[in-house]
Amino acid sequence: MDGATAPGVTTVTAAMRRALAASGEVHGSTSPNPAVGCVILDRDGAVAGVGATAPPGGPHAERAALAEAGDRARGGTAVVTLEPCNHTGRTPPCVDALLDAGVARVHAALADPNPVAAGGLERLRAAGVEVTLGTLAEEVARGPLRGWLHRQRTGRPHVTWKVATTLDGRVAAADGTSRWITGPGARAQVHDLRRRMDAIVAGTGTVLADDPALTARRPDGTLLDHQPLPVVVGHRDVPSGARLDRTDVLHLRTRDPGEVLTELTRRTVVDVLLEGGPTLAGAFVAAGLVDRVLVHLAPALLGAGPHALGDVGVGTIADIVRLHVDEVHRAGDDVVIDARPAPGPTGPPQ
Amino acid sequence: MDGATAPGVTTVTAAMRRALAASGEVHGSTSPNPAVGCVILDRDGAVAGVGATAPPGGPHAERAALAEAGDRARGGTAVVTLEPCNHTGRTPPCVDALLDAGVARVHAALADPNPVAAGGLERLRAAGVEVTLGTLAEEVARGPLRGWLHRQRTGRPHVTWKVATTLDGRVAAADGTSRWITGPGARAQVHDLRRRMDAIVAGTGTVLADDPALTARRPDGTLLDHQPLPVVVGHRDVPSGARLDRTDVLHLRTRDPGEVLTELTRRTVVDVLLEGGPTLAGAFVAAGLVDRVLVHLAPALLGAGPHALGDVGVGTIADIVRLHVDEVHRAGDDVVIDARPAPGPTGPPQ
Repeated sequence: MDGATAPGVTTVTAAMRRALAASGEVHGSTSPNPAVGCVILDRDGAVAGVGATAPPGGPHAERAALAEAGDRARGGTAVVTLEPCNHTGRTPPCVDALLDAGVARVHAALADPNPVAAGGLERLRAAGVEVTLGTLAEEVARGPLRGWLHRQRTGRPHVTWKVATTLDGRVAAADGTSRWITGPGARAQVHDLRRRMDAIVAGTGTVLADDPALTARRPDGTLLDHQPLPVVVGHRDVPSGARLDRTDVLHLRTRDPGEVLTELTRRTVVDVLLEGGPTLAGAFVAAGLVDRVLVHLAPALLGAGPHALGDVGVGTIADIVRLHVDEVHRAGDDVVIDARPAPGPTGPPQ
Repeated sequence: MDGATAPGVTTVTAAMRRALAASGEVHGSTSPNPAVGCVILDRDGAVAGVGATAPPGGPHAERAALAEAGDRARGGTAVVTLEPCNHTGRTPPCVDALLDAGVARVHAALADPNPVAAGGLERLRAAGVEVTLGTLAEEVARGPLRGWLHRQRTGRPHVTWKVATTLDGRVAAADGTSRWITGPGARAQVHDLRRRMDAIVAGTGTVLADDPALTARRPDGTLLDHQPLPVVVGHRDVPSGARLDRTDVLHLRTRDPGEVLTELTRRTVVDVLLEGGPTLAGAFVAAGLVDRVLVHLAPALLGAGPHALGDVGVGTIADIVRLHVDEVHRAGDDVVIDARPAPGPTGPPQ
């Protein structure tokens, strides 16, 4: 279908991007289920339905898209970010829904690594459906499914360390003031990132110094629909009257990143955002438990003030923690660097 | 001529880019003259000659390009990065050469701000030549002419602060080791930058800690043809046997950036590269005497070690030194951020 240009007709690649975007809308609200997106094209290649995973217990992406498509799905194409499931959990298998609807072709970006749910593509193929795996695989793997795939592979949540720093690596001025180092574009991205997370972790040092709310907000300050679990890590108490002095806050009285992740694993957390401060971030980096590094660089200089990152156990240059840069982009006046630990001897454990 | 596609025929924009590239080849060898590039197109729009400014006393870009074009210049077009000069210095006016060659059109990117040499375009126009000013003006102004234009406007050299840092703002590990934080791509760019400079400045602290050579080298370590003046700033002595313990090194026994630039102005220096260390860079930033900030960011973390930038006199966030990012690009695994002081109340003096 690639290259088609008739009105209303889309390419499989464009449909996969649309499915990916649909999954981004629900990212954060589906855990422990994966945030999947699905687009149904009718037999002429026009978009007939778009769906994404509902919160646990609700329909999966394929069923939502098929419901929108109705009869137009017959003889058409399902474009989906993850291999359709082949098992009955709280909902019946998506494969059954696709077969019932009479879909003729399925394009999936990624195979399901979960042995319980996998086998969907094989069953579709056996039933005579034309199956393609791998469309936009790399792009999809870096999208909303990234944390879920990581948890399937490693058994623990995916940790993103996010930090806003000046070009000279400072997160605040000498007197501790830090609002606003980055601009409104970067701040809006941070709130969009937060609403995609299952948990946000901050150390007690940051709670005492900055009194953060750890909420996902709109530019006008109102709360977004989905809010991550706020997690405070450390032995000190959250001061009475602090913004995080709330009953829904999880306070873990440890400084051990492994213990933090064990507890969050138990709570079916998939995506963790580590927001501060330098000591806690250093402990996670030193333990090899940071999976993504997201640096918002403000084009500004301070020359003094607290650093972005505390001790990571590196004393000499041969032990430097190397990263791989996935993407660099501008956000208003700021520069955003999206990186991950590099494989190899000088990187942290994978 | 834009949009022409016949074989061998080029557009004025493409010719200006080629003139800009030619000026880049000689950048660093022409001071105190500007590094200009010129392309002569014949009457059919094909490239007939390319030239760039020779070292002082040698021919200017226009004469070099006209010499290569010969008779093909007649009725043709001269595309030049700077308005052709109209005065007799060590060489006769370029305007005379263009008129003698019978050029029919001249496209210049920038007007000459030097009142002694200016008026070239006006004289060409009066002689019946079709004159256009402003082709690729912004791109050319950020190229090899940038330092010279700055010196014409301000009376002092243009200062580029270059620093190689990790994502967390460290320039070395806790034990002082720093080779190699950035990769070979970024290092090659640094040597290309050095050969374009008239002077490289380092503080005595950096000389004592790192024993730098401050030379422009090829990847195999051999010296490039043009070498900048090595300048050591500070009260301490260069240790006997250090790489900078050479008779061609200028040692300025001051820590005052203004005094450094006064001395370099006297020596007709146009482009200055500030390479270290954090104390000296901080003094230049605090004095508002850094005109370009070039950060080579290695995708790596150290968590400890010396910072990129020392005290700049900023104690609170309201006084942060804001920059404007001109360009972000990748160099191998590294990210290069090319910035300049932002205009406005929170930036340093312009």
